Amino acid sequence: MKIAVLPGDGIGTEIVDEAVKVLEVLDLKVELEFADVGGMAYDKHGHPLPEATLKLAKEADAILFGAVGDWKYDKLERQFRPEQAILGLRRNLGLFANFRPAICYEQLTHASSLKPELVAGLDILIIRELTGDIYFGQPRGRRAAPDGAFQGAEEAFDTMRYARPEIERIAHVAFQAARKRNRKVTSVDKANVLETFQFWKDVVTEVGQQYADVKLDHMYVDNAAMQLVKSPKSFDVVVTGNMFGDILSDEAAMLTGSIGMLPSASLNAANQGLYEPSHGSAPDIAGKGVANPLATILSAAMMLRFSLNQPAAADRIESAVKDVLSQGLRTADIWSEGTRKVGTREMGDAVVAAI
Amino acid sequence: MKIAVLPGDGIGTEIVDEAVKVLEVLDLKVELEFADVGGMAYDKHGHPLPEATLKLAKEADAILFGAVGDWKYDKLERQFRPEQAILGLRRNLGLFANFRPAICYEQLTHASSLKPELVAGLDILIIRELTGDIYFGQPRGRRAAPDGAFQGAEEAFDTMRYARPEIERIAHVAFQAARKRNRKVTSVDKANVLETFQFWKDVVTEVGQQYADVKLDHMYVDNAAMQLVKSPKSFDVVVTGNMFGDILSDEAAMLTGSIGMLPSASLNAANQGLYEPSHGSAPDIAGKGVANPLATILSAAMMLRFSLNQPAAADRIESAVKDVLSQGLRTADIWSEGTRKVGTREMGDAVVAAI
Ligand SMILES: CC(C)[C@H](C(=O)O)[C@@H](O)C(=O)O
Ligand SMILES: CC(C)[C@H](C(=O)O)[C@@H](O)C(=O)O
Repeated sequence: MKIAVLPGDGIGTEIVDEAVKVLEVLDLKVELEFADVGGMAYDKHGHPLPEATLKLAKEADAILFGAVGDWKYDKLERQFRPEQAILGLRRNLGLFANFRPAICYEQLTHASSLKPELVAGLDILIIRELTGDIYFGQPRGRRAAPDGAFQGAEEAFDTMRYARPEIERIAHVAFQAARKRNRKVTSVDKANVLETFQFWKDVVTEVGQQYADVKLDHMYVDNAAMQLVKSPKSFDVVVTGNMFGDILSDEAAMLTGSIGMLPSASLNAANQGLYEPSHGSAPDIAGKGVANPLATILSAAMMLRFSLNQPAAADRIESAVKDVLSQGLRTADIWSEGTRKVGTREMGDAVVAAI
Repeated sequence: MKIAVLPGDGIGTEIVDEAVKVLEVLDLKVELEFADVGGMAYDKHGHPLPEATLKLAKEADAILFGAVGDWKYDKLERQFRPEQAILGLRRNLGLFANFRPAICYEQLTHASSLKPELVAGLDILIIRELTGDIYFGQPRGRRAAPDGAFQGAEEAFDTMRYARPEIERIAHVAFQAARKRNRKVTSVDKANVLETFQFWKDVVTEVGQQYADVKLDHMYVDNAAMQLVKSPKSFDVVVTGNMFGDILSDEAAMLTGSIGMLPSASLNAANQGLYEPSHGSAPDIAGKGVANPLATILSAAMMLRFSLNQPAAADRIESAVKDVLSQGLRTADIWSEGTRKVGTREMGDAVVAAI
């Protein structure tokens, strides 16, 4: 089995280093191959997703991804910006199913913006469709407005679209995930305004008939944004489109107060997957050795479970992470009075020791 | 001056009754004319926005709106559903500028999901563009996918679009509002993915050059959804498109914990406006006399200030509302130990008395 390791920009290298250490101590007989991605790949090769990186990613069974992005690339033309690498990987590998757990670890409840009773024990799973919707819909661009009140004026436009099979497959993913959890799916749409999401709602409802053992609710996206704040624990699995999922998964992650702890997986139909922390490249703290590597380490665990079929190894990582939290070790982002502040490397070493 | 009063469905009638009482006691020499809207208008006239209602709304200087919607209309074809009334009013009257304050009243800080120190004194203003974007963009519909990976499959689609003058005018509204506040505008976009919002960002930046005294920041919508949770007080004025504004304004409202207190205004270029509470029609408590009328009463105050040029009367309402809160009166939604629970009518009477 081969893992493509793409550390990327900012804190990417530091946090991926720790996840690699953890994988190595598990002695899994997997081959790790490193490649350039994001802004640093643009600097070296003139493109954020070089041919060689894409080739490796396609061949590999899984991709362990750090983070991409830095202010210094903001002025580049869009096609050369670091985030195009991640969009390119999603599109080229067909990674349509994004798993974004929002979990509040017992020891970190206090780190949330929310009152502890609202988030204690929180465990929701947001499933975001990742290769369709307005992210990739054609046509898009700039033009003179062809009609409407501002006909003739300069305008920009994008196309939101979903085809039946795209909705069906992500709905199946959500219902199947719910079966392993609390058997409740909330499908988030904007059926009261958008044709695309009326269709989404219709198709998810149809697919739901095959899962009589799973409760299906529908919620408008504006209401979902509210209910996440009001009573996050009322959700189990949330399934939604690419654009709404972008917003809601980040909102939910921030509600936990410990986004530095949250992994993510993006899978295709062959269970090939890209695994990355939910947080970004944090250029402001890059190179300082203070970033939290746990989201990346937990992403490696998800990788072992989903793409490499090694659930026992995944369990070992996850319980080691709980152990180090119980030992009171904390990186700066989750530190609080009475716990011990450690750096990136020390945290990784502690996980290795706990394994 | 004429005010069109459209109570609508659910708790609409009850809460609008109280706002009308408040307007009457101010003795303003305005004429109030009532009309049907929403589901009850569909029941009576076969359309949620009957001709007569639209005509009245167009003639009036301002519209005082309650709420629309009820589960029982969910099965209707989209064009007959209650919310089409509100979309129809926005479009027909050109109400492009939606003001959604998210304010945390001192006495209600505890009602928030967030820790008190994060929301105490919160006062942000979300300005949402309300007549463009994917809400109204053509073309839209269902079809066989014309291209892409699912060519030929059934699909649904919508068009996101913004023309330069649409972005310019809402940007001016935001910068001018910021001048009366803390001189900071955060423009929320998704320029890293969407053509429409790269253009949005470019045009807002250009307009911003005319407001050297206002600080302009740009933030991606996913990040904005997070920062609202993490540090809501870091915002002053937020300006964004129709779809993102729908989500973020509701998220921000819920953060305050007292959505029953939050008014809104939707204005056109002639300062004609529609004023309504930020909350919905709450069919579950309709007719019980327990709904909070304060958001509607405060919407009437916004109406006096923005559309009827009676700022002194607006001030009187707003300070009366603060008075009743200080007296310890609370409707059920904002009640807490040690305060006195009152019904809709009693709350309205108390505001009248305080005036
Ligand atoms: C970087 C950006 C294109 C990306 C997205 O919008 O999908 C990011 O926000 C994410 O959620 O992974
Ligand atoms: C009812 C619905 C069409 C409406 C919207 O999406 O604009 C509502 O959510 C709002 O924010 O006023």
